Amino acid sequence: MRNIFETEKTKNLIPKIKAFLKEHIYPLETYENINGNFSKIEPTLLQKRDLLKKQGLFGLQLTESEGGLGLTLCEFGQLSEVLAYSPFGHFVFNTQAPDIGNSELLHKYASKELKDRFLAPLQKGEIRSCFSMTEPEFAGSNPTRMGTTAVKDGDDYIINGHKWFTSSADGAAFAVVMAVTNPENPRHQQASQIIVPLDTPGYKFIRNIPIMGHEGDSWASHAEVKYENVRVPQSYLVGPEGSGFKLAQERLGPGRIHHCMRFIGIAQRSFDLMCSYALSRELNSTSRLSDMQFIQGFIAESKAEIDAARLLVLNTANNIDALGASACRDEISAIKFSTANMMLRVVDRAIQTHGALGITSDVLLSYWYAHERASRIYDGADEVHKSALAKNILKNFVSES
Amino acid sequence: MRNIFETEKTKNLIPKIKAFLKEHIYPLETYENINGNFSKIEPTLLQKRDLLKKQGLFGLQLTESEGGLGLTLCEFGQLSEVLAYSPFGHFVFNTQAPDIGNSELLHKYASKELKDRFLAPLQKGEIRSCFSMTEPEFAGSNPTRMGTTAVKDGDDYIINGHKWFTSSADGAAFAVVMAVTNPENPRHQQASQIIVPLDTPGYKFIRNIPIMGHEGDSWASHAEVKYENVRVPQSYLVGPEGSGFKLAQERLGPGRIHHCMRFIGIAQRSFDLMCSYALSRELNSTSRLSDMQFIQGFIAESKAEIDAARLLVLNTANNIDALGASACRDEISAIKFSTANMMLRVVDRAIQTHGALGITSDVLLSYWYAHERASRIYDGADEVHKSALAKNILKNFVSES
Amino acid sequence: MRNIFETEKTKNLIPKIKAFLKEHIYPLETYENINGNFSKIEPTLLQKRDLLKKQGLFGLQLTESEGGLGLTLCEFGQLSEVLAYSPFGHFVFNTQAPDIGNSELLHKYASKELKDRFLAPLQKGEIRSCFSMTEPEFAGSNPTRMGTTAVKDGDDYIINGHKWFTSSADGAAFAVVMAVTNPENPRHQQASQIIVPLDTPGYKFIRNIPIMGHEGDSWASHAEVKYENVRVPQSYLVGPEGSGFKLAQERLGPGRIHHCMRFIGIAQRSFDLMCSYALSRELNSTSRLSDMQFIQGFIAESKAEIDAARLLVLNTANNIDALGASACRDEISAIKFSTANMMLRVVDRAIQTHGALGITSDVLLSYWYAHERASRIYDGADEVHKSALAKNILKNFVSES
Amino acid sequence: MRNIFETEKTKNLIPKIKAFLKEHIYPLETYENINGNFSKIEPTLLQKRDLLKKQGLFGLQLTESEGGLGLTLCEFGQLSEVLAYSPFGHFVFNTQAPDIGNSELLHKYASKELKDRFLAPLQKGEIRSCFSMTEPEFAGSNPTRMGTTAVKDGDDYIINGHKWFTSSADGAAFAVVMAVTNPENPRHQQASQIIVPLDTPGYKFIRNIPIMGHEGDSWASHAEVKYENVRVPQSYLVGPEGSGFKLAQERLGPGRIHHCMRFIGIAQRSFDLMCSYALSRELNSTSRLSDMQFIQGFIAESKAEIDAARLLVLNTANNIDALGASACRDEISAIKFSTANMMLRVVDRAIQTHGALGITSDVLLSYWYAHERASRIYDGADEVHKSALAKNILKNFVSES
Repeated sequence: MRNIFETEKTKNLIPKIKAFLKEHIYPLETYENINGNFSKIEPTLLQKRDLLKKQGLFGLQLTESEGGLGLTLCEFGQLSEVLAYSPFGHFVFNTQAPDIGNSELLHKYASKELKDRFLAPLQKGEIRSCFSMTEPEFAGSNPTRMGTTAVKDGDDYIINGHKWFTSSADGAAFAVVMAVTNPENPRHQQASQIIVPLDTPGYKFIRNIPIMGHEGDSWASHAEVKYENVRVPQSYLVGPEGSGFKLAQERLGPGRIHHCMRFIGIAQRSFDLMCSYALSRELNSTSRLSDMQFIQGFIAESKAEIDAARLLVLNTANNIDALGASACRDEISAIKFSTANMMLRVVDRAIQTHGALGITSDVLLSYWYAHERASRIYDGADEVHKSALAKNILKNFVSES
Repeated sequence: MRNIFETEKTKNLIPKIKAFLKEHIYPLETYENINGNFSKIEPTLLQKRDLLKKQGLFGLQLTESEGGLGLTLCEFGQLSEVLAYSPFGHFVFNTQAPDIGNSELLHKYASKELKDRFLAPLQKGEIRSCFSMTEPEFAGSNPTRMGTTAVKDGDDYIINGHKWFTSSADGAAFAVVMAVTNPENPRHQQASQIIVPLDTPGYKFIRNIPIMGHEGDSWASHAEVKYENVRVPQSYLVGPEGSGFKLAQERLGPGRIHHCMRFIGIAQRSFDLMCSYALSRELNSTSRLSDMQFIQGFIAESKAEIDAARLLVLNTANNIDALGASACRDEISAIKFSTANMMLRVVDRAIQTHGALGITSDVLLSYWYAHERASRIYDGADEVHKSALAKNILKNFVSES
Repeated sequence: MRNIFETEKTKNLIPKIKAFLKEHIYPLETYENINGNFSKIEPTLLQKRDLLKKQGLFGLQLTESEGGLGLTLCEFGQLSEVLAYSPFGHFVFNTQAPDIGNSELLHKYASKELKDRFLAPLQKGEIRSCFSMTEPEFAGSNPTRMGTTAVKDGDDYIINGHKWFTSSADGAAFAVVMAVTNPENPRHQQASQIIVPLDTPGYKFIRNIPIMGHEGDSWASHAEVKYENVRVPQSYLVGPEGSGFKLAQERLGPGRIHHCMRFIGIAQRSFDLMCSYALSRELNSTSRLSDMQFIQGFIAESKAEIDAARLLVLNTANNIDALGASACRDEISAIKFSTANMMLRVVDRAIQTHGALGITSDVLLSYWYAHERASRIYDGADEVHKSALAKNILKNFVSES
Repeated sequence: MRNIFETEKTKNLIPKIKAFLKEHIYPLETYENINGNFSKIEPTLLQKRDLLKKQGLFGLQLTESEGGLGLTLCEFGQLSEVLAYSPFGHFVFNTQAPDIGNSELLHKYASKELKDRFLAPLQKGEIRSCFSMTEPEFAGSNPTRMGTTAVKDGDDYIINGHKWFTSSADGAAFAVVMAVTNPENPRHQQASQIIVPLDTPGYKFIRNIPIMGHEGDSWASHAEVKYENVRVPQSYLVGPEGSGFKLAQERLGPGRIHHCMRFIGIAQRSFDLMCSYALSRELNSTSRLSDMQFIQGFIAESKAEIDAARLLVLNTANNIDALGASACRDEISAIKFSTANMMLRVVDRAIQTHGALGITSDVLLSYWYAHERASRIYDGADEVHKSALAKNILKNFVSES
C-alpha cells in the first residue's frame, strides 16, 4: 500500500535499510542470539555499525545540525517501522530506546556541558544510557506519586530512592533520574530530571528483573536499582527545577511515535511470516494452510489493522511535526493502546498459523509474544490511556455544548 | 484531528455543509420522519434541495465538465462523511446510493443518447434509479451465478429474471439490470449491464422486502422484482456486451469509498451523541456517566477506531485518484469489512451509553443499529471480502518468495 | 447434550412443548404477525391457550398449592428455554414477563384480598399487569434515586410520578408501582411497591415508546405513563412499607433466571436456523455454505457458548432452589450480562450466515437482533452488573486475605 | 459457587489438597524454580510425594482395582482443577500429562506383561513416560499423514521415524510411539501404538525444543527425537494392530478433561491473584486498583467465564462417565478450544491488572502467559476443533431436516 506520508527520503532509505537487514541482521536471529544473554551477541551487533557507517546509514535520527539527515518525525517513523522488523534492528542503528529518548531530551534541554559529556558519546554509540522513573511502591498510573528525592547540599544534589524498570541500566554509563526536588510545589511541579553517572558512589544495581522467565542483561534488561545518598553536581539537572513531569510529557510525544512504529514493524514482519508459512505448509496433496478460511481471516484482518494503525501513527507524527506535541495530546494517547493491542493480535494470529512451530523459539514470533506483552503496560497502561483520552475528548464537548 | 487529506476545497465546504445540516436537516430527524414511510418526508427533503442550490451546494459530486467542482474522490469522501451525519443528508444533496453509483457508471460508459436521456435528469435530481443485480436463488458470494437473461430479438433485448435487493426501485425511473447476454463466454464475461425504464411492460414490482420489521417505501426501500419478457432496445446496453462484471467491479471502487465514508459519518455522529449524553447524564449529585471508566473506555476505543478507519479509507481514495481503482484492489477489499464492523461497534457502544434511551427511537442510534447491520452483508459479506483479500495478498508472497 | 439438570418432569414436558410450538405457534411467525401490532395477533394467540388447557400444558409456572406442577425454578427454566424458541411462546403459555414476575411477587407478599382480586385472574390469563419502576429523569444504574412519591391521605396513598419502560402497560389491568413512601428512611428503605389498577383516575398513559422504530401495542409495548394524584387504598401495598427495594431484589432472582433462559432459547433457535440454512444454501455445484470454515467457526463457537451459558444459568437456578436467591447474589449478577451478550453474538452470527436474507423480516433473526438488544440494558445494564459483581467478589477476598 | 457435580468425595478431598498445596507447594513457586531447569527442583518435588503418601493423597487417579479411590472422571476433574493451581501440583501428585494419559491407555489396552513392566512403576511414580506422535514434516491438523513406520522383522518391529513435541521424553523410561504398521489399510487404520523403552539402540534424542525462549529439561520439556532402526518385540504393541488412531481418539476423551480442568485451575488461580492484587494496590490515599471499573470488568467477566467453563467441562466428564467418550464427541471438541481461550483471556487480564509486575517472573502469571499459549495448539488447534465440531453438529441437521 502506497501511503500518503512517503517522501523522497523515505523512498530512498527504506529499500537500503531492508537490504541491510536481510543481508546482515536476519541471519543473526537464531534461538541463542535472540533468547540468550544480549551481551553475547552485542559485540557482533556493534561490528555491524561499522558497515552502517560505511553505507552512510548510521545516525538516521540525527538533526542536520548534528550532522544527520534532519528527518521529520514522520519520516523517521517510517524507517523506525522497518528497523523493528528485527529485534536487533534499532540497536544496530543506534536508534534504540531508551537512548533515542534520552538523546532527544538532552538535545532539547541539556546544557552545553552536559551535551558534550553525555549526548555526544551517546549519539556516536560509544555509551548507553537509561531512564529511571518507575518505582515499585507506587502505581505507574499515577506518576506524580514518587518516593525518590534529590536534596540540595552545597553545589550538589543528594539523591535517595528505589526504582525498577530502569530499562538497560545494566552496562549504561548514566541514568536520567526522576526525583522530587520541590516537595512544596503543586503535584506536577515537584520533580526534576537529573543525570546520574552510574559509577557514582551510592548507586546500587540490585538485579535485572526477570521478565517472562528471562533476566536478560546489558541493553536487553530491566533493572531494579537503588540510589543511596548519591551525590551529583546541581549542574547535572536537565531543564529547570520542577520541570520533570513537563519534560517527561514532552519526551512521550516523539517517544510514543517510536514505540508505535516499532509495534507496527513487529506486526508487519509477523504478518509476512504468517503469509509465507501459510503458503508453504501443505495440509495434504491438494491443499495448503493458506487455503483455509480461518487463516485467510487472520491474514485479511491483520492487513486492515496494520495499515490503519500505520496511517494513524504517521498522521500523528505528521501533526507533531507541524503543530508540536502538546497540540496532539489526544492523538498521542490514542495511538499507544490501539497500536500495542493491534500488534499483539497480529503476533497471536501468526503464532496460531504456525501451529506448534509458532510457540517454539525456532521462529521469532514466540519472542515477541512473550516480550511485547509489556507494550500494553509500560509508558502508560491501556486503561490509563483510555481514561485520559476520554477525559480530554469530553472537555471539547463541554466547551461546544 | 487534522488529517493529511484536507484540501482548501474540503476546508471551505465542510463547515458549510455542517451548518446546513444543523439548521435544516437535524430538526427533521424525528421518530416519525426517520421510521415512517420515506414518501411522507420526501417532499420536505426535496424542498431543501432548493436551499442547497441557492447556496451553491447542490451537485457536489459533479465533475467540472458537468458543471461541478471536480472534487477528487478523496475530497468528495470527506464531504461524504459529513453528509452521513444525518440519514437524510445524502438524499438531500442528491449524492445518495444507488444513484451516485449509477451516475458514475453512466458518466463513464453510457452513450451520448443514454446520458441525455437518463444521466442528465438523474444528476439534476429529477428522477431516481436503481441497480438490479442480486438474485434470491443464488448466493451473493458468487456473483457469476445468475439466472437473469437478456436475449437478442431484432434490435432489442428480451429480459427475463428474478431479482431482489434492487434498492430504491420503488419510484425509480429506471434500473441498471445485470443479465446474462453471452452464456457461451467464460464465467466473468457472460453478463452485461442494460438500462430498463421501469415503465416498460413486463417489469413487475413484487414487494418492498421488509428489513428489520420495516418495508419502507420510495428511496428507502429494497425491492423484489421480476422481469418477464421485458423488451428494451439494444442501444440501452451500458459498455460493451459481456462487460457486466468488469463494470460492476469498477463501480465498486468509488462505490466502496462512498459506503465507507458514510459508515464513518455514522460512527462519528454516534460518537458525538455518546459523548454529549455521557456528559449530560447525572448518576448522582457528584458524578456523571462520563466519569465511569466503562464509558471512558467506549469513548477512547471509538475515537482511535474512527480516526484510523477514516485515514485508511481516505488513503485508499487518494490512491484510487492517483493510480486507478484496479491498482487498489486489496485496499478496497480491506476497507469494506473493517469500516463496517467499526461503525457497528461504535453505534453499539453509543447505544449502551444511552441506556434505555438508546434502544428507543427517541434517538437516532437505534435506527442505525437496525438498518446498518446490512453493511456487513451487502456489497460483499465480510467473509467474502476477507477471503478475497487474503488470496490476493498471498499472490504477492508467491511471486516474492 | 444431556445436561445434569434434567428431571423426569422436564424430560416428559419438553417434547410436548416442542411439539405444540411446531404445530401451533411456528406457523404464526409471519412478518405481519411478528412485526405488526401485537393486538392483531393477540386473539389468535389467546385461542391457543384453550388448546393448551386441553393438553394440560397451561399453568406450567404454578405451584402445587395453586393447582400447578410445582416445578422447581431449575425445572421451569428448562421449559422456559423451549418456550422462548418463538416470540409468541411465553405469551401463549401465560408465562410472559412482566406477569410471571408480578405473579411470583404477589404469591409471596400480597394479602389474601390482593391475591383474590389481582393474582387469581392473572394466573388464569384473564388480565395482564405491568411493573412501573424506571423513571426517565434518573439513571437506571442507581435505582434508589426516584421521583415518584406515595403520600398517605386517610386510608389511601396519593401517588404522583413519571415512569417509562412500564412494559406492557398498554391494556394491563393493574401496575405494581415503585414509589417513595418513607423519604426519611435510609436510601434503600424509602420506597414501597403498591398496586394501582389502571382505571384509577389520575393515571395517564402518555405513549408506547417507539423501540427500534416500532411503538408496538398491547403486551408488546413499553409505555411512558404519569401518575397524577392517583388515589389507592393503603391495603394495596405489597409487603411492608419501605420494602420496595428488597422486594425488587427478590423478584430479580427468579426473574433473571426467566430472562436468561429466554435468552438461551432465542440463542438455541437462532443456532438451529443458522445450521439449517448453512446446510441448505448452495454456493455452487459442489459446495454449500456449511462447507465454509468461517461458518463452521460461527457454529462451533455458538455451540460451546450456548451450552456453557445454559449450565451456568441452570446451576444458578438450582442453587436458588436449594439456598434461596440472596445466597446466590453473585451468580445471579454473573448470568445476566454473560447470557445476554452470548445471545446477541449467536443471533448476529446467524444473521451473517443468512446473508441478505438475515436482515429481512422473512426470517425471525432480524426481529431478535433489533428487539433483544435491550437485553444488555434492562434489568441492569452490563456495566452495572459487572461492577456490582466485582465488588461483591472482592468482599470475599477482603475477608480471606 | 456451589456446583452440581460436587460429591462427598470431592468435598472431602479438595480442602485437603488445597491445604497441602498452600503449605508445601506454593512456597516453592520462586522465579528460579518455575523458570529454571526442572531437574533442579525435581528432587524436592519428589520428596513431597512421601508426604502425600503419608496423608493418603498419592494415587488420586487410580481405580479401586489399582488400590485407588475409584473416582469418576467428573470427580477427578474437580481435583484436577485444584492441582493445577500450581505448576508443580500435578507432578507432585503424579497425575501429570503425559503419564496420566499413558496410564489410562495401558490400563485399558496393555497386556499383563506390559502392565507389570511399564504401568506398575509408572503409577508408583518410579519412572516417567512420553507419547510420540507429532511429526515436524506433517501438519498436526491431519494426523493420518505420518512418516514413521514399524515394519515386522521376525518377532520384532523395526521402527523408523522423526518426531517432535514428544513432551517429557527427556528422562522418560519409555515412549508410546505412533507408527504406520499397515500402510495397505484405509487411512485411519494404518497406524499402531507401540511401546519403545528409551534405552533401545537407535533411539536418538535430538534436542529439547526451545519454547518461548526456554529449552527446559526433564519432565518440563518437549523433545525432538529420531527412531533409527529401533527394534522392539511385537508384544510391545498396545491394542490391536491398526488401532493407533482409535486408541488416540479414546485417549483424548479423558485426556481432554484433564487438560481442560487444568486450564480452569490456572484460570482460577490467576483470578485469585488478580483479585488479591487489585485489592492491595493503592492508587492514592483514597482509592485502590479494585475501585477502577476497568478492573472490575476484568474480574466480573472472568468470574462468569470461569464458572461457565467449569460446568461445561464437568458436565462433559459426567456424560463420559455415563455414556462413554465416543457418545460425547461433540462436547469433547467444544470444551477444548473454548476452555483454552477462556484461560488465556483470564491470565491476560490478571497480568494487565498487575501492571509492570504482571510481566515479571516475580508472579506466576507471566509463566502461564508464555507457556500456556500452547494450549490453543496442542491436542488439536482451535481451528481444527471448530471445524470438526461444526461438521459433526451439521450431521444431526442433515438427518433431522
